[in-house]
Amino acid sequence: MVERIFMSKDNFTITYLLQLIKDKNVLELREFCESNEPIDIAELAEEIEDPKDLLFIFKTVKSDFTAEVFTYLSSDQQEKLLTLFTDKQLIELINSSYTDDIVDFMIDMPANLVTRILRISDSDTRRDINHLLNYKEDTAGSIMTTEYILLPHSFSVEEALTRIRKVGPDMETIYTSFIVDSKRLLIGIIDIEDLLFADPKALITDIMEKDFITTNVNTDQEEVAQLFKRYDLTVMPVLNDDQRLIGIVTIDDVIDVIEQETSEDIQKMAALNPLDVSYNRSSVAVLAKKSAPWLLVLMVLSVFSSIILNRFEASLEQVVILAAFIPMLMDTGGNAGSQSTTLITRGIALKEIELSDFKRVFLKEMRVSLLVGLAVGLFSFFWISFQIMTGILIYEPGPWPWTWPWIGEVAKLSGLVAITLFSAIVIAKVFGGMLPLIATKLKKDPAVMSGPFVTTIVDVSALIIYFLLSTLFFSII
Amino acid sequence: MVERIFMSKDNFTITYLLQLIKDKNVLELREFCESNEPIDIAELAEEIEDPKDLLFIFKTVKSDFTAEVFTYLSSDQQEKLLTLFTDKQLIELINSSYTDDIVDFMIDMPANLVTRILRISDSDTRRDINHLLNYKEDTAGSIMTTEYILLPHSFSVEEALTRIRKVGPDMETIYTSFIVDSKRLLIGIIDIEDLLFADPKALITDIMEKDFITTNVNTDQEEVAQLFKRYDLTVMPVLNDDQRLIGIVTIDDVIDVIEQETSEDIQKMAALNPLDVSYNRSSVAVLAKKSAPWLLVLMVLSVFSSIILNRFEASLEQVVILAAFIPMLMDTGGNAGSQSTTLITRGIALKEIELSDFKRVFLKEMRVSLLVGLAVGLFSFFWISFQIMTGILIYEPGPWPWTWPWIGEVAKLSGLVAITLFSAIVIAKVFGGMLPLIATKLKKDPAVMSGPFVTTIVDVSALIIYFLLSTLFFSII
Repeated sequence: MVERIFMSKDNFTITYLLQLIKDKNVLELREFCESNEPIDIAELAEEIEDPKDLLFIFKTVKSDFTAEVFTYLSSDQQEKLLTLFTDKQLIELINSSYTDDIVDFMIDMPANLVTRILRISDSDTRRDINHLLNYKEDTAGSIMTTEYILLPHSFSVEEALTRIRKVGPDMETIYTSFIVDSKRLLIGIIDIEDLLFADPKALITDIMEKDFITTNVNTDQEEVAQLFKRYDLTVMPVLNDDQRLIGIVTIDDVIDVIEQETSEDIQKMAALNPLDVSYNRSSVAVLAKKSAPWLLVLMVLSVFSSIILNRFEASLEQVVILAAFIPMLMDTGGNAGSQSTTLITRGIALKEIELSDFKRVFLKEMRVSLLVGLAVGLFSFFWISFQIMTGILIYEPGPWPWTWPWIGEVAKLSGLVAITLFSAIVIAKVFGGMLPLIATKLKKDPAVMSGPFVTTIVDVSALIIYFLLSTLFFSII
Repeated sequence: MVERIFMSKDNFTITYLLQLIKDKNVLELREFCESNEPIDIAELAEEIEDPKDLLFIFKTVKSDFTAEVFTYLSSDQQEKLLTLFTDKQLIELINSSYTDDIVDFMIDMPANLVTRILRISDSDTRRDINHLLNYKEDTAGSIMTTEYILLPHSFSVEEALTRIRKVGPDMETIYTSFIVDSKRLLIGIIDIEDLLFADPKALITDIMEKDFITTNVNTDQEEVAQLFKRYDLTVMPVLNDDQRLIGIVTIDDVIDVIEQETSEDIQKMAALNPLDVSYNRSSVAVLAKKSAPWLLVLMVLSVFSSIILNRFEASLEQVVILAAFIPMLMDTGGNAGSQSTTLITRGIALKEIELSDFKRVFLKEMRVSLLVGLAVGLFSFFWISFQIMTGILIYEPGPWPWTWPWIGEVAKLSGLVAITLFSAIVIAKVFGGMLPLIATKLKKDPAVMSGPFVTTIVDVSALIIYFLLSTLFFSII
């Protein structure tokens, strides 16, 4: 009974495992592996350097278990192992794996291995593999499996249960069966519990569920995941364009999709091109290649703020302390924008916010930003006055400190910064909230588009307001 | 058969529904509701303004269906409806609902309604409700249900199947049953398929799974979700501190947890205090209250950059064009930092990165940042030279444009910015990658802690490098 904590990858466990292999201690190795979860054994197996040691595990432990371990290995380890496999071992692995898992690892294999796998598979498996290999990445087809229970519409409950008992062990799920008519059109689905609770003599067409949710094989996997979440599904039939049943998607694959798509969204919001694999498995070069593009875009777009600062050099020369608050205005404004962008982008991803909510979001962001802008702006007025009056920042605009004219100048400067900050927050939050919706309207990805543009819009408008007001406040020519 | 698209909330559908209610068209109303999914009907029901109309749906459509619709209603609508319910209707609702769903809606109800629900519930239900109401929020206890199939260890397969047929319809899942000994200690679990495939005379203790994953009732729900994902579970037994079975968590509740926790992480990374409910259900005041604190923190922390700019006023007065690149340095550096923070924070959330990876992450971020810094820095050198040489930015440091000394000055300025940008990116990515791990080490939430601190560290160090180099490059006193 494993409780809460993952098995530790500590050196002790790995040394123990390697020792078992070295001693060819078959019995204990079997027991050690099978009393743990396949994913944990796979993690340990990553640390095994000699592929022959790894092969020994696969030869020793029963193939149902090792087939699952195999799916969790990195493609490097998988490839090393497959190269060592005899045809017999390869056949055993394929027969113990679900077709969708086979396809998953075949995608990363070199061509000669793929050919070898196809050659030794039986014709049914080969047809299924070829089929699945042809579906576009990130569609329902790419995550579906072809191992599901099909029941003819003429079956009684009793016949159905007999069939399930017979074919069930090879199927990805036995909880739901699918009922097709003579043209293989899907006419109903039925859960195992309904069969168990029903009169054995009843016809399955009388008790099957006729209202159910399906998806097309080319539907984006993110949309499929949305449907699973919305309707609390555990399985969903996949139809081709002729409405014929060709596969099913199960909940375990959907959880992976949700995670993967969320990671991609998060990365895009952080101005990263999404990684294809996890951070650990991404090379330094790949990480650099994913990081650089949006930084370059940001850098190029910053020409607009540079131009504004360049054109207002006179203000800066006359009141040089103005420069001291530029980082604060950029950072606070930028963050205010990314708050709104994040909320709206996530809302769109979860289908809580739609295009038709444009006006509602606009009004809400407007009101929120006015409140936040007022609070933060007001606070910044006192905070900046405080910094100058206590000498944290040195500001000597002519008259000596602590005279009334000096206090007036301090208030003027703090007021200028506060008003700019207020405006920056309002602009940031309203644009930040709108841009993801505008991106969606333009059929662009809201998570990618918004970040750099919000930053640029906020920077530029805050700087313009700042310097225009400064020419007014300090009568700069 | 519903295909891919959600039922539209358009005016037509709502008008149609209201018309059915007005006409008291019981038959058609029943058919309309039951041919749709409960969550879709609940969404329509949100638009019904008169609670009496809503009540009519609940009186008309069968209670299994409406009980599910009820769980998806907003707490406002739920409360209005419950107030109108007779005791008989209330009992019907409670008997048709799972206990965990009852508790979910009771949490938001006023005390008098809670008392009324407890009063009319039968003693078993009351005990269960009281039990669940007592578990801390966000623990396994708060998402578990008490409706599961318990099998005595003496049962045969046949007896087990008979029991499942009998009690199954009231249970949250029949796919997995739990086997306890005479002290109610959990000794095994068994899937329905294993019962179906087994010899009816066999003892369940002989075929049950003895290695399984459990959780304690006080375990954080996020940890529970991690276990579900890691081990592809669909159900997990929940034990109390005495190791006795007190409930189960099912996959549908876990998907909600994953989503909720991810939303919170994303919000925290965007310098927002996490919302308790969705954007749509958060009021303007709540959104403002969640947005303001971190903006204030950022503003206060920006005093450090202000001080640096204030102390280096001499540099700015002598080479005022230096100011033009401050926003670019802040934005690009800040974004480089948040890229790394995001990758590492997400990696920690998915348990791909652990504390022990500190050195590995450090080295990786170091190498990635050197590559990215070199690329972006080098590009910025040419981009800034280009801006000045083409007159996009005006820079007249004494000698006339397009003389060799002038070109030398331009190269000096571009070089200064490029070196600063390079350093800012390296600092940002290395600190950005380390801070989430440091936060984890200090048992703080990595998603919250890192953002504002990375921004401040990057701003301050970039400005110091920028101005120190500028005194060197331009021999400022």
